[in-house]
Amino acid sequence: MARKSSRRRGGIRAERSQRTAGGLAQLPWQRLRNPLPPIELLQPEQIEAIHDTSMRILEEIGMDFLHPEALELLRRGGADVEAGTERVRFDRGLIEETMAGAPSELQLHARNPAHHLAVGGNTITFGTVASPPNVSDLAGGRRVGNFADYCDLLRLAQSLNSIPFFSGYPVEPVDLPPETRHLDCLAAFVTLSDKAFHAYSLGRTRIRDALEIVRIARGIDDETLRREPSLFTIVNTSSPLRLDGPMIEGVIEMARHNQLVVITPFTLSGAMAPATLAGALAQQNAEALAGMTLVQLANPGAPVAYGGFTSNVDMKSGAPAFGTPEYTRAALVGGQLARRYKVPYRSSNANAANLADAQAAYESEMSLWGAVMGHANIVLHAAGWLEGGLCASFEKMVMDAEMLQMMAEVLKPLEVNEDTLALDAVREVGPGGHFFGAAHTLSRYESAFYSPMLSDWRNFETWQEDGSRSATERAHLLYKDILAQFEPPPLDPAIAEELEAFVTRRKEEGGAEAA
Amino acid sequence: MARKSSRRRGGIRAERSQRTAGGLAQLPWQRLRNPLPPIELLQPEQIEAIHDTSMRILEEIGMDFLHPEALELLRRGGADVEAGTERVRFDRGLIEETMAGAPSELQLHARNPAHHLAVGGNTITFGTVASPPNVSDLAGGRRVGNFADYCDLLRLAQSLNSIPFFSGYPVEPVDLPPETRHLDCLAAFVTLSDKAFHAYSLGRTRIRDALEIVRIARGIDDETLRREPSLFTIVNTSSPLRLDGPMIEGVIEMARHNQLVVITPFTLSGAMAPATLAGALAQQNAEALAGMTLVQLANPGAPVAYGGFTSNVDMKSGAPAFGTPEYTRAALVGGQLARRYKVPYRSSNANAANLADAQAAYESEMSLWGAVMGHANIVLHAAGWLEGGLCASFEKMVMDAEMLQMMAEVLKPLEVNEDTLALDAVREVGPGGHFFGAAHTLSRYESAFYSPMLSDWRNFETWQEDGSRSATERAHLLYKDILAQFEPPPLDPAIAEELEAFVTRRKEEGGAEAA
Repeated sequence: MARKSSRRRGGIRAERSQRTAGGLAQLPWQRLRNPLPPIELLQPEQIEAIHDTSMRILEEIGMDFLHPEALELLRRGGADVEAGTERVRFDRGLIEETMAGAPSELQLHARNPAHHLAVGGNTITFGTVASPPNVSDLAGGRRVGNFADYCDLLRLAQSLNSIPFFSGYPVEPVDLPPETRHLDCLAAFVTLSDKAFHAYSLGRTRIRDALEIVRIARGIDDETLRREPSLFTIVNTSSPLRLDGPMIEGVIEMARHNQLVVITPFTLSGAMAPATLAGALAQQNAEALAGMTLVQLANPGAPVAYGGFTSNVDMKSGAPAFGTPEYTRAALVGGQLARRYKVPYRSSNANAANLADAQAAYESEMSLWGAVMGHANIVLHAAGWLEGGLCASFEKMVMDAEMLQMMAEVLKPLEVNEDTLALDAVREVGPGGHFFGAAHTLSRYESAFYSPMLSDWRNFETWQEDGSRSATERAHLLYKDILAQFEPPPLDPAIAEELEAFVTRRKEEGGAEAA
Repeated sequence: MARKSSRRRGGIRAERSQRTAGGLAQLPWQRLRNPLPPIELLQPEQIEAIHDTSMRILEEIGMDFLHPEALELLRRGGADVEAGTERVRFDRGLIEETMAGAPSELQLHARNPAHHLAVGGNTITFGTVASPPNVSDLAGGRRVGNFADYCDLLRLAQSLNSIPFFSGYPVEPVDLPPETRHLDCLAAFVTLSDKAFHAYSLGRTRIRDALEIVRIARGIDDETLRREPSLFTIVNTSSPLRLDGPMIEGVIEMARHNQLVVITPFTLSGAMAPATLAGALAQQNAEALAGMTLVQLANPGAPVAYGGFTSNVDMKSGAPAFGTPEYTRAALVGGQLARRYKVPYRSSNANAANLADAQAAYESEMSLWGAVMGHANIVLHAAGWLEGGLCASFEKMVMDAEMLQMMAEVLKPLEVNEDTLALDAVREVGPGGHFFGAAHTLSRYESAFYSPMLSDWRNFETWQEDGSRSATERAHLLYKDILAQFEPPPLDPAIAEELEAFVTRRKEEGGAEAA
């Protein structure tokens, strides 16, 4: 693979234009449902033992909420706030009673109604990588996050049907000033894409700006926005057992506007959580329930989701690992827990590879199978994540899109009927015959099987003559093609104008406090 | 990835000796059980529809058996042999009645009793790639199969605990004369390895030689060999609906010696089977049942297994594809069918990639998850397969071993008890603390989590300073290390002598007829 590299890079340049002409063969945009029964890794009594431990954590140990408004909400809701501290203890009855009002399903609205997402039940949807500080591609190497790459990642994800939403900034554009960065980033979601997106809970102002931008983009009033969740935020607890102030402001603001809040404890087993999966899951459960309870106390019935992100560290180095067997098992159990509380479940497509190589692929598959068979409804970081989240990769985004399409096809109901059972075709062909020319085959020529976007099924000789390109190298060609063909989705000029005026005004006002 | 290749290849040479010194960190050899409930992709009535169609195929269309001995056995067993032809039709009652006597579980014996394999029930075991005509590694490139690489692949697989058996020749050594090749290859299984292995059903003589070699290797008599299955053969039907003469001779000989026969229809949807999965699976089922029925008629109660290998062709080129969504779904349904007949199930770890790259990894994971969640008992080609079976890859074998270990860990029961729930550890650390130094963590420092063999979890900078090696390049280093450290498993000198004498004599006799 490492041989003949310069020849192959020449090959990349030479063939790009040919491939561009062909357009992108991909599956259509779809709202996926998962008809398979989830894998129940644990027995019901084991799930109850985890639940019970998480309740004891909240009852006996408690969790710190670093914002007076949260403490006030929790106190009034019936939780026990330790005097003179930010430590809150919850009675399990309070948790269960409050959580009972959380919706189990919702619709997340996009600018383009065709891209609205169903969340909950047996739905599953996949979003981009979010928040890495770095970005890379084969030609340009690894670089610090910047707005140009940010926009290219938006264009790429907008073009790929298997990525129905944006999980956050696909890379952090650190070349933009922190006070107004969110304005440019959110405006880009609306102008370069028409899919649903995320807003960061970094204080109240940024959330308010995001709410206004999504309201303008959808061309709706405040009341409609409140009725139709159109924005979601991921809130990571600062595990163990702490929720920070800027996050709390975002949680409360989003809840009051009836937008989706996903509480995702960052319970890395061995570092921020116990070095046993059962213990890390009990802590995850405690933190997720405490956070979702805060949402329900801020606005009963507001949409929430249970985020599971338990993985483990490498005990030798302390480095976080993802797509490990522990990660897969935690993803499966997280689904069992979320179903216990009847709220949507969020998981991720994570890996710890430094390159969009075979390790990135097999670790991602381990994460994806955990998410899919754990019945995650929302799969974050599903496309483009590398290095345990420290780098966004253009090639990985394309590679993930292929893996997501393949998953979508696995979930497609398998038709069994007289026509597909094909007894007559078997009779026609008979022992020793061939099905290539059979009428049953010819009538299905175009659509019989999944047709890959990235995988190369040509024989070795043909593949070799064509440059012996690895999947990563082909993903590079493909992403360049897609960007070359990109056209932004249509946007009403009046909306574009209103959006621009808002962003300009808010920039003049100085944006938000530094995060 | 394609950049800086020459520097990296220098790096490969420079660091090999350091890595060799460390030894191989891998999971111990284990007999795996799969505690997860299988994924039931189809409803029971859909399985019955496939069963019914397969019965109609056997009743109305029939299957060709190209050997008079099979025709005679089938006729005497009650099947309808069309006069003057090799076409055989089966009554469904005959199939179900005959199959009822097939064992649902067995032990497959290895030369080393510690390496005996349980087959059936919820066991799962993984074997090497088998039968590719080519072999490759990064340094030497792709080359025609030869005995030196054959032996190196045996050494590599013998060293990897996650590969408990040999599925066949890991590469075809075409530099050995066809008449005596099986003698050298089988003798090498016994001298370079102590794990269970496969014999090719290419006529009666080769099977008899294999039986004698495994008898000598185990130091047992004929009667014990008959009581203790110690050899298995994979018989591919020549789909559609044909079983060739040399295969039939092997089937009958193996059955009469009570050795394991796995009938695996090669039902490539769109080529050798209908272009619909339901149809291809119905045909697979018909061929598998007909073949297993032949085994039972040759020796009632002899061990058989149901082989599922349904995949699809690329309709544009006719090229076979593996690790596709169709493949995964067929693997899951194959398990449902095998369970219906209460016989062990065989699946594969297949892919169509031309390189041990990301495509090879994600297609393999799709195959593996299908096999594991379809509750395959025997997973063939689980390590080292590339190019739809046309090439064995040393790097892929190491990469697969990592993926197999990860799967083994996913299947490990998750302990939920007071100790693992870790309430006291959470109490000790408390909100905002850290678990690195907690007693609960320190007592688990060595064994808390899966420790990878190939995956690199170091941060980008460290990984970059160390040569920016891809997983494929690291697999290359690792396989070279393993071979450098290889020592053959102990073999009783008397057995070695008897074996050599047998091989010498059989070579002098001219071996077997050309295959």
